[in-house]
Amino acid sequence: MTYCVAVRVADGLVLLSDTRTNAGVDNVSRYSKMFTWEAADERAIGMMCSGNLSITQGVMTRLNKAIRMSAEDPGIETILNAESMYRVAELVGLAMQGLQDRYRQSIQAEGSGADATILVAGQRKGGQHRLFMIYSAGNFIEATEDTPYFQIGEIKYGKPILDRVLTIESPLPEVVKAVCVSMDSTLRSNLSVGMPLDLAVIRRERFRFDVRERIEADDPRFLAISERWGEALRDAFSTLPAILPA
Amino acid sequence: MTYCVAVRVADGLVLLSDTRTNAGVDNVSRYSKMFTWEAADERAIGMMCSGNLSITQGVMTRLNKAIRMSAEDPGIETILNAESMYRVAELVGLAMQGLQDRYRQSIQAEGSGADATILVAGQRKGGQHRLFMIYSAGNFIEATEDTPYFQIGEIKYGKPILDRVLTIESPLPEVVKAVCVSMDSTLRSNLSVGMPLDLAVIRRERFRFDVRERIEADDPRFLAISERWGEALRDAFSTLPAILPA
Repeated sequence: MTYCVAVRVADGLVLLSDTRTNAGVDNVSRYSKMFTWEAADERAIGMMCSGNLSITQGVMTRLNKAIRMSAEDPGIETILNAESMYRVAELVGLAMQGLQDRYRQSIQAEGSGADATILVAGQRKGGQHRLFMIYSAGNFIEATEDTPYFQIGEIKYGKPILDRVLTIESPLPEVVKAVCVSMDSTLRSNLSVGMPLDLAVIRRERFRFDVRERIEADDPRFLAISERWGEALRDAFSTLPAILPA
Repeated sequence: MTYCVAVRVADGLVLLSDTRTNAGVDNVSRYSKMFTWEAADERAIGMMCSGNLSITQGVMTRLNKAIRMSAEDPGIETILNAESMYRVAELVGLAMQGLQDRYRQSIQAEGSGADATILVAGQRKGGQHRLFMIYSAGNFIEATEDTPYFQIGEIKYGKPILDRVLTIESPLPEVVKAVCVSMDSTLRSNLSVGMPLDLAVIRRERFRFDVRERIEADDPRFLAISERWGEALRDAFSTLPAILPA
């Protein structure tokens, strides 16, 4: 499985993903599920993938191939020259449709699932910072003020904390803490989601990544959040009023 | 959907269930998913059900019918005269098998699911207090010291808090708080789980229910836990160290 979460607040965008891929418990590997692009301080785009790995890798390959080909032929439309983030989401959806059209039937015929989901976050100069979720059919939805985050993969364990602390006004350091706590809850409850993590932050109107780093299993900052959160939860729990008399 | 959680600690057993049943969002009803039996200060048994409602109601009907018939013919084995809690779990499994044999194929033929799961908790004089989970096939597993709780239904949202605070040594009032917090997280994140709740507590070596009550949506104790937990989580969150500088 996978757990990826992306948040869009007034100040910018935060992306966090795990790196575990498995096809059964005896076939576990590590793949980055986060892909990022920057272009000339004009745009920054981050994507995270869940679902069938051959499909999502195929989508990434198509997007990157178009970028390489556009160096020769600038008329080729790519995620780095598309006129808007909305158009970027459309291009990802089109690549998804291409892969699904080619492989979905044969993948399903052998009993596997071809579903895949891709989160697309970014900003280009002159536009808003935006966050989209692209489905297997190539269609997509956008995060709004009411729903400032999207999750893909193993989403349930880490959802309650996001629902409680995130709003459109949350400052980016708060958002980074929130997604780390959400990931920590997921890691503890589901073996198929695993360290290390990939973290990316795009501050509004910067058009580049403020943070783009890998958080390893022994990262002291993540360990501090994880340990402190465990203690804080137990402390908080101990202050709750009793239903049953002691 | 459903959310039921049962915990077995050294001091006894705690059961909590919601009461919402739905077949689609426009067909929502309320059914108790908790069933309890007491017999002459000799045993107390509680069960909670998830899955196909016709199957689980059928199982409860069979168990109760046997009890009624045994009034005439004491030779009939029932959950109230079975020699052990293990045998009680077997009787529930046999009833489950009977219902599945009769209806599973026709239920599946019309495109519905026949799966069902039943949690069985209790103690009889002379035995330990025990907790079992009975599957659709009639087979079952038992809660051990390593895994002091079972959940059925919509289990993921409410699992992280249980993993963090429950141990076999947790006192019963703590366990009641923990299952209420677990339920509160589930209620907030999933519309198909709903108030009111059914709560039951069997203290070790008492052979009757210490608590067997319905918690309504406006119950001040549950509201206090829910509100205080929200505040406490936000307070705890604010004390976490930052990963990203402010």
